[in-house]
Amino acid sequence: MRFATYRYNGQCCVGVVSSDGQSVQTLDLPPQDAQRGVLSLVELASAGHDLASLLHGETTSMDDVRLIAPIPLPRRNIFCVGRNYHAHAKELSGSVFKASNADTTAWPIVFTKVPECVVGHADDVSLPTELSSQIDYEAELAVVIGTGGKNISRQNALNHIFGYTIVNDVTARDVQMRHQQWDLGKSFDTFCPMGPWIVTADELDGSDTRVRCWVNGELRQDASTRDFIFDIPALIETCSRGITLFPGDIIATGTPAGVGMGLNPPQYLKPNDSVRIEIDGLGSIENRFV
Amino acid sequence: MRFATYRYNGQCCVGVVSSDGQSVQTLDLPPQDAQRGVLSLVELASAGHDLASLLHGETTSMDDVRLIAPIPLPRRNIFCVGRNYHAHAKELSGSVFKASNADTTAWPIVFTKVPECVVGHADDVSLPTELSSQIDYEAELAVVIGTGGKNISRQNALNHIFGYTIVNDVTARDVQMRHQQWDLGKSFDTFCPMGPWIVTADELDGSDTRVRCWVNGELRQDASTRDFIFDIPALIETCSRGITLFPGDIIATGTPAGVGMGLNPPQYLKPNDSVRIEIDGLGSIENRFV
Repeated sequence: MRFATYRYNGQCCVGVVSSDGQSVQTLDLPPQDAQRGVLSLVELASAGHDLASLLHGETTSMDDVRLIAPIPLPRRNIFCVGRNYHAHAKELSGSVFKASNADTTAWPIVFTKVPECVVGHADDVSLPTELSSQIDYEAELAVVIGTGGKNISRQNALNHIFGYTIVNDVTARDVQMRHQQWDLGKSFDTFCPMGPWIVTADELDGSDTRVRCWVNGELRQDASTRDFIFDIPALIETCSRGITLFPGDIIATGTPAGVGMGLNPPQYLKPNDSVRIEIDGLGSIENRFV
Repeated sequence: MRFATYRYNGQCCVGVVSSDGQSVQTLDLPPQDAQRGVLSLVELASAGHDLASLLHGETTSMDDVRLIAPIPLPRRNIFCVGRNYHAHAKELSGSVFKASNADTTAWPIVFTKVPECVVGHADDVSLPTELSSQIDYEAELAVVIGTGGKNISRQNALNHIFGYTIVNDVTARDVQMRHQQWDLGKSFDTFCPMGPWIVTADELDGSDTRVRCWVNGELRQDASTRDFIFDIPALIETCSRGITLFPGDIIATGTPAGVGMGLNPPQYLKPNDSVRIEIDGLGSIENRFV
């Protein structure tokens, strides 16, 4: 199933997208749960509730709703993986990854983005031009944790996935690098477009899908998640080592080659640029930078 | 004033500690607000409420309450500063800071700890001995943001502080270093003792206080916050550049020299070790490692 969060008639709703993508059926949730978007569903599902029992709301045309981020406010910072496609490791080896361990396969690089920087499909991203002249896109497949846990083994990891969504891990390169730890340069307000919805784990093979990104219609990133340096079970195992993961936690799995900083010469985002990310089996998001 | 969060008669309460520290007066808060500890007060205060009007609860002896962390679950990851005392920068220059910019004054290093690793004074810290053999303490003064904001200037920064508390930024050194980004090695469950309470900004000069840490009674860290590389206004300015800070956000200001890794030979924490941190004008916390 594909679970979306959206505004309809001034209300925040959570619903199931129809198989043809033309309509959405609203789930029966109290307003304070609907406000939290699909996060409420993830928590209900991981507590053993049958989500199908909520399926008796109104069906609405997609044209009449405005999608917002499926999890509008994650419960805590989003876990993000820093270098997870071989070609991307290479393109930034002289810049972002200059100080990093040269052995890309040793351990994943994991940093975070603050929850409040999440925006939805079609929302504008603010370019903080007075603070950075190097704003870059990063198309990523994101894993949404279902059942929580600590010290989750690779073998069990897939059982802990609720579903997948798309994130654009927008980054101020100069800020990312000057602070050495990356969280600040990744966390500017509006720096995490997410959407268009969450596809449940049974409907997408996260280990074999295509991730593409266009800037103003020009294809910049195009890779398969088969090229991951660390696969999704390894990432879940890593993030849960000694750290309890909770339902709704999000792990962004890293970006392919083709970011603006990796081009020669680098091409950073400018006002009115539009970034579109598509992941096969998931859908697409597009955001204007202003 | 000193605001504490504690359990009394099976309830979670928030109260004001008496000037002699012998008793605490419970504030009149709905249970769901009391559960969130002093975070509720910070939000009320920043929304313009007069906290004094809540001061009509019962007064209880300190002996009858059990302190918990003043903010038991921060609203998002805690911002932490990585290298903020000159002597500490030097002691770890060949290890943790080896890959860092050698110019310690360029920009602060900022990383995060997950909210759920917070525990209170006298709570046990779990040593994940199967995952790390290098668990270390870091005594720190933490700033609690009152009024939120974005792009807060140094000049206005002090107006955005609600108060101060103590944190022990417990760290798995091997995990911290192998992932290159530090968030994972800083975020193991129970890795953030916090307390004993929050002292409001009018009662403590965070720029001139003494931070000490003892392991099993042996003094290991002893410094003044006058030795900060980046002062508190600079840290608030840095963290709020492009990123909206919210009431209750926490910024841990970095640790002085004397961490276990900096000793020769290094001395990491072992089962039954006890770490006590005292900050003048604030109080002390003590936690056993098990």
